Amino acid sequence: MKSDAVGPPAHKYLVVAAQLEQQIQQGLLQTGQKLPSVRTLSQEMKLSISTILQAYYALESRGLVEAQPQSGYYVRGEHRASALPGRPAPHRVPAVPREEDVDSLLAQVFEQVATPDRLLFSQGGPSPALLPITKLNKALLQAQRELPHAGTSYEPLQGNLLLRRQIARYALFWGSTLTHEDLVTTEGCTSALAFCLTAVTKPGDTIAVESPVYFGVLQLALSLGLQLLELPTDPVTGVDLVALAQHLEQGQVQACLFTPNFSNPIGCCMPDEHKQQLVHLLEHYQVPLIEDDLFGDLHFGAHRPKPCKAYDRQGWVLWCSSVSKTLAPGYRVGWVAPGHYLEAVLRLKKCRAGRSPALTQQAVGNFLATGRYELHLRRLRQTLALNCARYQQTILASFPPDTKVSQPLGGFLLWVELNREIDTTQFYHALLDHQIVIAPGRLFSIQPQYTHCLRLSYGLPFDERVEQSLQLMGRLLKDRMPEPELYPEATLVIEA
Amino acid sequence: MKSDAVGPPAHKYLVVAAQLEQQIQQGLLQTGQKLPSVRTLSQEMKLSISTILQAYYALESRGLVEAQPQSGYYVRGEHRASALPGRPAPHRVPAVPREEDVDSLLAQVFEQVATPDRLLFSQGGPSPALLPITKLNKALLQAQRELPHAGTSYEPLQGNLLLRRQIARYALFWGSTLTHEDLVTTEGCTSALAFCLTAVTKPGDTIAVESPVYFGVLQLALSLGLQLLELPTDPVTGVDLVALAQHLEQGQVQACLFTPNFSNPIGCCMPDEHKQQLVHLLEHYQVPLIEDDLFGDLHFGAHRPKPCKAYDRQGWVLWCSSVSKTLAPGYRVGWVAPGHYLEAVLRLKKCRAGRSPALTQQAVGNFLATGRYELHLRRLRQTLALNCARYQQTILASFPPDTKVSQPLGGFLLWVELNREIDTTQFYHALLDHQIVIAPGRLFSIQPQYTHCLRLSYGLPFDERVEQSLQLMGRLLKDRMPEPELYPEATLVIEA
Repeated sequence: MKSDAVGPPAHKYLVVAAQLEQQIQQGLLQTGQKLPSVRTLSQEMKLSISTILQAYYALESRGLVEAQPQSGYYVRGEHRASALPGRPAPHRVPAVPREEDVDSLLAQVFEQVATPDRLLFSQGGPSPALLPITKLNKALLQAQRELPHAGTSYEPLQGNLLLRRQIARYALFWGSTLTHEDLVTTEGCTSALAFCLTAVTKPGDTIAVESPVYFGVLQLALSLGLQLLELPTDPVTGVDLVALAQHLEQGQVQACLFTPNFSNPIGCCMPDEHKQQLVHLLEHYQVPLIEDDLFGDLHFGAHRPKPCKAYDRQGWVLWCSSVSKTLAPGYRVGWVAPGHYLEAVLRLKKCRAGRSPALTQQAVGNFLATGRYELHLRRLRQTLALNCARYQQTILASFPPDTKVSQPLGGFLLWVELNREIDTTQFYHALLDHQIVIAPGRLFSIQPQYTHCLRLSYGLPFDERVEQSLQLMGRLLKDRMPEPELYPEATLVIEA
Repeated sequence: MKSDAVGPPAHKYLVVAAQLEQQIQQGLLQTGQKLPSVRTLSQEMKLSISTILQAYYALESRGLVEAQPQSGYYVRGEHRASALPGRPAPHRVPAVPREEDVDSLLAQVFEQVATPDRLLFSQGGPSPALLPITKLNKALLQAQRELPHAGTSYEPLQGNLLLRRQIARYALFWGSTLTHEDLVTTEGCTSALAFCLTAVTKPGDTIAVESPVYFGVLQLALSLGLQLLELPTDPVTGVDLVALAQHLEQGQVQACLFTPNFSNPIGCCMPDEHKQQLVHLLEHYQVPLIEDDLFGDLHFGAHRPKPCKAYDRQGWVLWCSSVSKTLAPGYRVGWVAPGHYLEAVLRLKKCRAGRSPALTQQAVGNFLATGRYELHLRRLRQTLALNCARYQQTILASFPPDTKVSQPLGGFLLWVELNREIDTTQFYHALLDHQIVIAPGRLFSIQPQYTHCLRLSYGLPFDERVEQSLQLMGRLLKDRMPEPELYPEATLVIEA
């Protein structure tokens, strides 16, 4: 770390932690060795006591050092990442960008058409039963009446004005200062992400993503000729900022694409102070963050978590979202606030897609304008929170005892980590016979990992059939479990 | 030409013509020199008399050789391209791919918002008065009733089934054998072109385009890091196939993007036999053709001109179109039949845009299913043909005498070539004071050419205001004309 490379206070400690971690990994600080006292290091590095303390806390929470009362911090013998009961452990992923073809599996899983026969736990969206269809229909008719020439004419390139104003209004909830002029509408969040990633990278660049990560992000990045850095991601607090800081310091990352609020599939929600640190870190290295905030409105707690965009002072954050997970997947209404990449994103929209459809944008604008959206969201969130708890309960009661399941505080998705001997791709195929479709873990990395994990959506209403299907999955999994005499029953690692 | 490089009969003559043209350009065949007799060359090249004759005709029509009765073919002294009265001459463009920033002009021209005050001759689309809005509204309501969950659910990735079936049905008119399984729906024709070009090229590749060419194609190609080969284009018969054959033979072209039916801006329509030759030529070199058939339904003659796709036996043609120029620009409903690039295009659609909006697709499907589309098209075509004639008449009567204007047999667009001393970018700015917006010629090439040309849409109904505005343009142009004593009045070159 060069001292002149240390920027705003919010992320200083990350750079210190990154340096200490490097020393531990290189063996300069060895197992059992005591770290310099906080005061000493503070004086040596000309940094405040609290910055050094934050760095030590960061290393401690990542399992690299441990505090001994009345003594100080020591390097841990076993650099094991923390794991909470029933939650997957954070994954330390070898950050070697590598391509591999899982297209065929992906296509199979998502070509499973929804029929009354089939239970699609694989879909990451709301059941139609949860959507305000009658009121949306009215909003569409209103759009048809209001729009010039009943919506047959082109919209402004930047998108429908009513919709952009309403998005800006809703963003006030998280303290945004965005106006309609900062926003560009897109065909769902997918094309927002695609325009952003195209705007901020060139082929051969490396982008940092969470791990496990939404397969759509992998596919998009590979289709743009990008390398992927899959960062270790804590199931509660999200991306490991110290690891990111290390790669940024080495100039290895040209852009980040994260889902800080209720990531897909692991469901983590980055704490506010992490978001602020992340934004400052990226400002310092002048690296853009594409923020997928698709699930942000689906918080189970009282308040909507802020997106990183709330801390963006310099325009490095490209905030992307849509109503596809909350209101109307089939409308394909999304948007982006691209910060200082506004012109670049608009240019791409112009030549790669053109104007957005008028009617569906105006209909969503109308729906938001009435205030019905907040009411609808409140109900949707309650249902999802309840669903989530019931799904979790059933899984913990029915699945083998060493199963770990994520504890998301919002969104649609559960991430389930099974015994390492279980291959969830095989399990996926076996479940098809029972008309059950899951998303196998292999899809969520470019590397051959997470093969013992799976993603389940709890967007489907929790009814008898869902309950029985989860119980059936549990029985089938127990049949697949390795012999108990050969493999001792796993115990859950419990840490504070 | 290697004799084994000669493929199916339909394009053999092109390769012969390409070889002879090269000899003329290199001075191996000199001005006034007699070409070998048709019989001699036929024996030498082991090709039929008619193939050699076709090659000589091709060179003759391009102004490179001339026939002398009872004698034979001679190299012309002046390799002047043919020009018909009142039509722009074909442009021989130096094929040096080069990027240049005309973005700012482009943005200015197309940010001119339609107001009652402003006459947008710049827009290449139908006036709302020409659209069947009431019937479309009904088709949309029907879609809302019919679709599962009122269109809030995702469509299949390939697109709405009803729409794809109807497109396949309408394609029967030009002898297509396409089915719904060959089609992918897209957000207007723009994203169809974008997916296709992304699927068939990689950055650094060269694509062949018409010249002048639609600025959207230029922007798209540059945004993908492609080089552009602007091919000489005849205002009547389209792209110079001999020139294309030369570049293909030299391996310089990785893909073609043409608008064979009523190209934008020049309005040429490739004759059927050219289309067939083009497809065979590309099959021979295994080079894909992205066919923009946006205007194909807007023919003034009795029959819809076939697209090149009609001659595609091997899947090298990616046929793109939409209803944006015929039915509802603001619906953004387009499609592509990508031939053997189907999988590649679907992959791109999946990761860069996702599913298409359900409601507008189903509405267009409904509209097509009733047979109203054909009735609507008939009226629209009649109106446009009449508009076209009136616009042309007024221009020829009002503009300076050396003005040349295209004679399109379909579509929306007139291409007007003025005296070379006129700068249409300056003229564009001057016209803004009169609330008239035109598209200056500079936008239609990456090279600094066509600066004395302009594109006018005749999609606006021909009323008194349009007539007076065209007359005003004529007066303003005459004021800008160079002094008559310095510049002799131009005479029109008339050739058979």
